Amino acid sequence: MNQKKIYVTGLGPGNADHMTGAALASMADADIVVGYKTYIDLIKDLDCVQGKTLKASGMRKEVDRCQECLDLALEGKTVTLVSSGDAGVYGMAGIMLELVEKQKADVEVEVVPGISAVNAAASILGAPLMHDYAVISLSNLLTDWELIKKRIRCAGEGDFVIALYNPKSKGRPTNINTCQEILLQVKDPKTPVGIVQNAMRDGQKKCITTLDQMCDQEINMFSLVIIGNSKTYVTDDGQTMITPRGYTL
Amino acid sequence: MNQKKIYVTGLGPGNADHMTGAALASMADADIVVGYKTYIDLIKDLDCVQGKTLKASGMRKEVDRCQECLDLALEGKTVTLVSSGDAGVYGMAGIMLELVEKQKADVEVEVVPGISAVNAAASILGAPLMHDYAVISLSNLLTDWELIKKRIRCAGEGDFVIALYNPKSKGRPTNINTCQEILLQVKDPKTPVGIVQNAMRDGQKKCITTLDQMCDQEINMFSLVIIGNSKTYVTDDGQTMITPRGYTL
Repeated sequence: MNQKKIYVTGLGPGNADHMTGAALASMADADIVVGYKTYIDLIKDLDCVQGKTLKASGMRKEVDRCQECLDLALEGKTVTLVSSGDAGVYGMAGIMLELVEKQKADVEVEVVPGISAVNAAASILGAPLMHDYAVISLSNLLTDWELIKKRIRCAGEGDFVIALYNPKSKGRPTNINTCQEILLQVKDPKTPVGIVQNAMRDGQKKCITTLDQMCDQEINMFSLVIIGNSKTYVTDDGQTMITPRGYTL
Repeated sequence: MNQKKIYVTGLGPGNADHMTGAALASMADADIVVGYKTYIDLIKDLDCVQGKTLKASGMRKEVDRCQECLDLALEGKTVTLVSSGDAGVYGMAGIMLELVEKQKADVEVEVVPGISAVNAAASILGAPLMHDYAVISLSNLLTDWELIKKRIRCAGEGDFVIALYNPKSKGRPTNINTCQEILLQVKDPKTPVGIVQNAMRDGQKKCITTLDQMCDQEINMFSLVIIGNSKTYVTDDGQTMITPRGYTL
């Protein structure tokens, strides 16, 4: 009797040092590892996948990729679907579980958490997430733009630290400017903002700036942007962003 | 010349399987590993800390613990301060960085990210964080209760998935009820809610319920609560909570 199991595994930011033992074990247990090409490249040299079948697929084929994993599992293969960051945050875990539910497939799905992009970026900037925070994707590919704008406004009014996924791409070059305009209505223009690109991968860059100047900085589809709350400050050397939790030092 | 370095390391939910290689390496590199007693217990049997000095300290001594690390580092020791989950989310990273800045200490601080409690809990529940979410601590020990209530309201109005840290303790038995009342004003009472206790540790439990009934469930200081958005649903077997990202299946 085959076990018919799919792991949906978060690889963390990319660098193997930031993968968990459980993530590596899920790949070691698989017959086949499936993922977007960039993520397969991140793991193809790891010991735990040597001798295994690796299937790389293209972008924007998320549903097809999950269906392929499900078909393989129903044939009796153990499949590990890899995703960067945490597979449960704008990742593949939800689609995989939705497909299994919709088709009432008799397959076990285990979600293996990974270091989320927001946590990786925060660690590079210092400690900007020490208090309540909101995570918002600026991609309106699958989400109504009016809803995204409403969420930005609510997060600003609530004085949350705000982390932005997908802040800018060629198809959405100005969403970040609209986000800035909304937040400037309720936040201090000098609120610290951290921008991290390629966190824990080749080409890692960080920039610490302010809300009124953030759109003058390099922001692209590999960036994660963290906007402080009203208490967030930057160290005197300009290198570290800290949101106090409220302890008296 | 001593390097004078402090690692602030997130251990993830607790189980060694969910620690990263970088977290283990930061302990291997240390002369001394410092942490709250419960966290020292989680790591004291790991190979990477054998033969090292382990210093366990009590609860609510966060600032003292950071000062102790700083003093040790200034003496030339390499110190690793461990924290559960991600050290940068309601953890020790911010306090450590604040102390170093305040005292202008010449010590390098490296924050090593860990699997955050919210990501661990989400992976156990299914995929509730697949869309924009807000993370709120219900502890008013260091934060004004009026601000916390405002954030709950804003997160509800923005239809964020909402993750609650510190939902209940002996000293704050009713904050969760107030939170429920606020959210019932703007959200469907049948909104799915997941409660996870002791994620990836001994005694792990999960419960999937609804917003109007969540306060009837066991919730304590080891619980993390995730409240869905208006699209979140539960699978027919009642075991899995999914927030759709918006893909057409």
